[in-house]
Amino acid sequence: MENPKVAILMGSTSDAAVMGVAAQVLDDFGVPYEMRVLSAHRTPHETSRYAAEAEERGIQVLIGGAGMAAHLAGALAAHSTLPVLGIPLTGSSLQGLDALLSTAQMPGGIPVATMSLGKAGAKNAGLFAVQILARQDTELNQKFKDYRKKMRQDILNTVLD
Amino acid sequence: MENPKVAILMGSTSDAAVMGVAAQVLDDFGVPYEMRVLSAHRTPHETSRYAAEAEERGIQVLIGGAGMAAHLAGALAAHSTLPVLGIPLTGSSLQGLDALLSTAQMPGGIPVATMSLGKAGAKNAGLFAVQILARQDTELNQKFKDYRKKMRQDILNTVLD
Amino acid sequence: MENPKVAILMGSTSDAAVMGVAAQVLDDFGVPYEMRVLSAHRTPHETSRYAAEAEERGIQVLIGGAGMAAHLAGALAAHSTLPVLGIPLTGSSLQGLDALLSTAQMPGGIPVATMSLGKAGAKNAGLFAVQILARQDTELNQKFKDYRKKMRQDILNTVLD
Amino acid sequence: MENPKVAILMGSTSDAAVMGVAAQVLDDFGVPYEMRVLSAHRTPHETSRYAAEAEERGIQVLIGGAGMAAHLAGALAAHSTLPVLGIPLTGSSLQGLDALLSTAQMPGGIPVATMSLGKAGAKNAGLFAVQILARQDTELNQKFKDYRKKMRQDILNTVLD
Amino acid sequence: MENPKVAILMGSTSDAAVMGVAAQVLDDFGVPYEMRVLSAHRTPHETSRYAAEAEERGIQVLIGGAGMAAHLAGALAAHSTLPVLGIPLTGSSLQGLDALLSTAQMPGGIPVATMSLGKAGAKNAGLFAVQILARQDTELNQKFKDYRKKMRQDILNTVLD
Amino acid sequence: MENPKVAILMGSTSDAAVMGVAAQVLDDFGVPYEMRVLSAHRTPHETSRYAAEAEERGIQVLIGGAGMAAHLAGALAAHSTLPVLGIPLTGSSLQGLDALLSTAQMPGGIPVATMSLGKAGAKNAGLFAVQILARQDTELNQKFKDYRKKMRQDILNTVLD
Amino acid sequence: MENPKVAILMGSTSDAAVMGVAAQVLDDFGVPYEMRVLSAHRTPHETSRYAAEAEERGIQVLIGGAGMAAHLAGALAAHSTLPVLGIPLTGSSLQGLDALLSTAQMPGGIPVATMSLGKAGAKNAGLFAVQILARQDTELNQKFKDYRKKMRQDILNTVLD
Amino acid sequence: MENPKVAILMGSTSDAAVMGVAAQVLDDFGVPYEMRVLSAHRTPHETSRYAAEAEERGIQVLIGGAGMAAHLAGALAAHSTLPVLGIPLTGSSLQGLDALLSTAQMPGGIPVATMSLGKAGAKNAGLFAVQILARQDTELNQKFKDYRKKMRQDILNTVLD
Repeated sequence: MENPKVAILMGSTSDAAVMGVAAQVLDDFGVPYEMRVLSAHRTPHETSRYAAEAEERGIQVLIGGAGMAAHLAGALAAHSTLPVLGIPLTGSSLQGLDALLSTAQMPGGIPVATMSLGKAGAKNAGLFAVQILARQDTELNQKFKDYRKKMRQDILNTVLD
Repeated sequence: MENPKVAILMGSTSDAAVMGVAAQVLDDFGVPYEMRVLSAHRTPHETSRYAAEAEERGIQVLIGGAGMAAHLAGALAAHSTLPVLGIPLTGSSLQGLDALLSTAQMPGGIPVATMSLGKAGAKNAGLFAVQILARQDTELNQKFKDYRKKMRQDILNTVLD
Repeated sequence: MENPKVAILMGSTSDAAVMGVAAQVLDDFGVPYEMRVLSAHRTPHETSRYAAEAEERGIQVLIGGAGMAAHLAGALAAHSTLPVLGIPLTGSSLQGLDALLSTAQMPGGIPVATMSLGKAGAKNAGLFAVQILARQDTELNQKFKDYRKKMRQDILNTVLD
Repeated sequence: MENPKVAILMGSTSDAAVMGVAAQVLDDFGVPYEMRVLSAHRTPHETSRYAAEAEERGIQVLIGGAGMAAHLAGALAAHSTLPVLGIPLTGSSLQGLDALLSTAQMPGGIPVATMSLGKAGAKNAGLFAVQILARQDTELNQKFKDYRKKMRQDILNTVLD
Repeated sequence: MENPKVAILMGSTSDAAVMGVAAQVLDDFGVPYEMRVLSAHRTPHETSRYAAEAEERGIQVLIGGAGMAAHLAGALAAHSTLPVLGIPLTGSSLQGLDALLSTAQMPGGIPVATMSLGKAGAKNAGLFAVQILARQDTELNQKFKDYRKKMRQDILNTVLD
Repeated sequence: MENPKVAILMGSTSDAAVMGVAAQVLDDFGVPYEMRVLSAHRTPHETSRYAAEAEERGIQVLIGGAGMAAHLAGALAAHSTLPVLGIPLTGSSLQGLDALLSTAQMPGGIPVATMSLGKAGAKNAGLFAVQILARQDTELNQKFKDYRKKMRQDILNTVLD
Repeated sequence: MENPKVAILMGSTSDAAVMGVAAQVLDDFGVPYEMRVLSAHRTPHETSRYAAEAEERGIQVLIGGAGMAAHLAGALAAHSTLPVLGIPLTGSSLQGLDALLSTAQMPGGIPVATMSLGKAGAKNAGLFAVQILARQDTELNQKFKDYRKKMRQDILNTVLD
Repeated sequence: MENPKVAILMGSTSDAAVMGVAAQVLDDFGVPYEMRVLSAHRTPHETSRYAAEAEERGIQVLIGGAGMAAHLAGALAAHSTLPVLGIPLTGSSLQGLDALLSTAQMPGGIPVATMSLGKAGAKNAGLFAVQILARQDTELNQKFKDYRKKMRQDILNTVLD
């Protein structure tokens, strides 16, 4: 997409199914984004450079998803002053407890906004990016309020057999 | 302060020392905020109303800190469409693992941006609020970049005996 | 059912299979109940109102089941003075440890009676609701004693091959 | 006290400071109770007999507090059909995680209503016993509502320096 | 079997496949045993009586296997002075961590000898019962030494492709 | 002592205060024992040899206490066919969870009877050794029964203020 | 292979599929190795002797993989002064948390270099062995640098659909 | 020191007391090293550059110690092909579980050799660095063997009171 406002990064194509949930949310809200495979450990230079150059390319929010010793969001936060959202992924045998602690327990000074584990977290990262962008975009803000109303109504319409 | 842009909420005055770290960060950046004691469980109506009315009062970011079954940030997120930052506090005998999971594991649809446990998290919540506000405030964005440069320089100036 | 004495609440229809175990217990004891989908996070107003009005509608016990950052039982307890039973559900990748801590670790002042994880907890919530109601219903109390005798006898009749 | 309605049991005098918090709540509400040291492991016969005879002595709620492999509440529940509240205590090196799981994870059929760890749990056990008794005592129910209003007001009166 | 020397107890027939591994070991060593379904929570009187009478019936070792809030081995230890071996079972969503802590963390004064989780634990309980009995049975002691030699030889004979 | 029947082993003199609790129990029951500092990792040959020669020296039970990656009890079990009791010690920052899992989770074939963490476990190891020896010593068996009666009576004599 | 420089040891043939990943890495780098089934608990003498004699046979690095109370790497480290790499395996119901703590938490004085859980750890053990050997082998060092470049390039070549 | 062969890195001067234990070991073995404060998050460029240039400066082993979301060792491993040893530090409220998982659970392809938590880990990192260097230094290898003999003798000389 042209002029992406959000970047969705993941360390491996095997994470694409989960991270695609964040992309779908942004599509639904009409927010332009780009999605890349970049690894904190295997392509550290490219990851640093991407993070460092994102702001001047017009990107407003960085989203990083990783499992195990999940360093991607932290690496993005180290190389950029943009808000960084971290999604701990659950592929490891420890079922994401490792990724959750590796993402959430950032030292004072370099925040990462940690979302829930896995797909719920990917969805919430997309929504939280919208909430940040909506601070300066009245129309997007209204769309978000409408989304929440619809979510509420969907539950109220639920019929238990 | 007049025209607060950030609200810092906690469930008890016993959390004020930790949550004050977030306030100090906002003071350092010149961001107006207000700080309140409101409990998701003991004053649920006032908490809901506060969250629901915050946006029209000009508040842009909500920060909630709580320990144990830490529901405050989630309750704020349920009643507002503003971005909500959650700080899991560590006072319980489980040392905050309960608060971390209660804050981070939000269901898909209602994001809470979870920070680290305790004081590091309070500091990072203050900084992350600045990062969000800086999306629409060039001067604040520059201050944040300067802050990061200074942090970097402080470490490079370190001398080990 | 008319004049329900117990309310069984859950955040999503996907929890209905587990929560239905509590309903089955109440059916077996002839206790009228109602079952609703209401979310602490996605329908907070309706959840609050439901909890606040339950007592005057004749409901005596509230049962809430939720997974992940399981706030439903806590939200019910915040808005009602009825006894609230919480069932931590196990759908998340952390297998319910998150839900168990989010349900059990309530702050002093707002109790939630936490049951076991998942189906065993749903069964026990149904039984515990019966035990509360049986304080003022001699016949129900006798039924509960008979149930326990039968459970005991079933085990004593067990034959290992 | 004469005609106790609640029994507070603990395995050792070293638990008396924590369990006394439950007693204090009952004192505040004017609910008669008795408090005993009885161990599921060291005095199993006396514990069983106490539980089995409690109902005919007029007791309506049993509260058991224990640490480590906390079996006391479960043993009470096995020998009585009264509602049993369990308070996991935190004295062990695992800080109560052992007691929490040993108390909460009861098998289907024999419920224990688990409260928070330690003093918050003891307070909540006292309150939850009041909530159960208030089902059949209008005056007590009103006292409980007044208690909750005062708790709410205390928070709203809070002044942060 | 006549004159059983070891008793293998479990709370439910659903545990029979795992507990049968202990029985198989005793069969292999020619040690007579009996196997019963008895629950600490659902048949507490029968469990107590069984434990209390086991020694005079000639039983030398009690083995109890249970999952979740695994109280069976502790209940046996409370009602008998025979050595009690506990096998934490893994059926719960917490994968046996609850059963392990509930079995191992017995208070000072009432030991339970805890084995590994699940089938490995059942096998080891059978072997450990043999080791206890072998203190007073030279022939059994020699069989155990032979068993260990064979186990060693089996590994040394392993051929990797 | 001459003709020790129990050996108490630990990896470091810093464990002597805890392990001394096991020795005290054996002193109280008049069971001769010896106590040694031997490490599975730092003196592996001496540890192996000690374990291998213990039986022919008349020792009937081996007790090993260790913290962190607690291999001592497992190493004793690997080199002897005597029953081995393991006491997980709590000195590490993980508060003994590491030692508990390292001691309890032995593979099928080589049992270690795991006791509670720390001093409670040391006490229970002493008692369990007595229970094993009492299988072939009527007088010791009676002493153990008397000990349990006294423990029970001590609790029944408890007076709460 | 002749003149193996690395030894890959495991406690059971059931671990061969995971441990074979380490072997494959060494094959890819042309490093000679040997692979053996030896158990810390079931063949302790052979394991000790193997470790003790490895250095004089020209082996430079020992790799041990084990699950549950994973003592193999620690046992190798106790009997050799070669660098030992430990791979915690995930077969147990605790999903490797037991193996991770049993491998990593070695006491001061006897290091084990712990890798990730399961296959990722086996791969990394192979790579780390190469990194150690490359200290004295310029060609191997270059191969390793080439491997890393290729890994980086593979990620950069990734195309998301 | 001139011509350092080992680099000891930490994120903050508050880690110097623990990391100094590694330095002390290298001093004892006469291995030249250098010690620096560099943060993966706060000085990412300097950390990358340091790691990338270390090999050509003659450094053979990198040691990184960090707490919480401990990324330092992983960042060093991402930017260098030297062997990297990671020491998880224990300062956080989660007592190092976060640092242990963040250090150990590296993805396949980028190994970090994880040591024990805290001071034991720092000591072992120093020793493991010596073991790596000793592969190509006969004298150092002999010193290491002597060190191990002395450690063994110290334990054998232990006298329990």
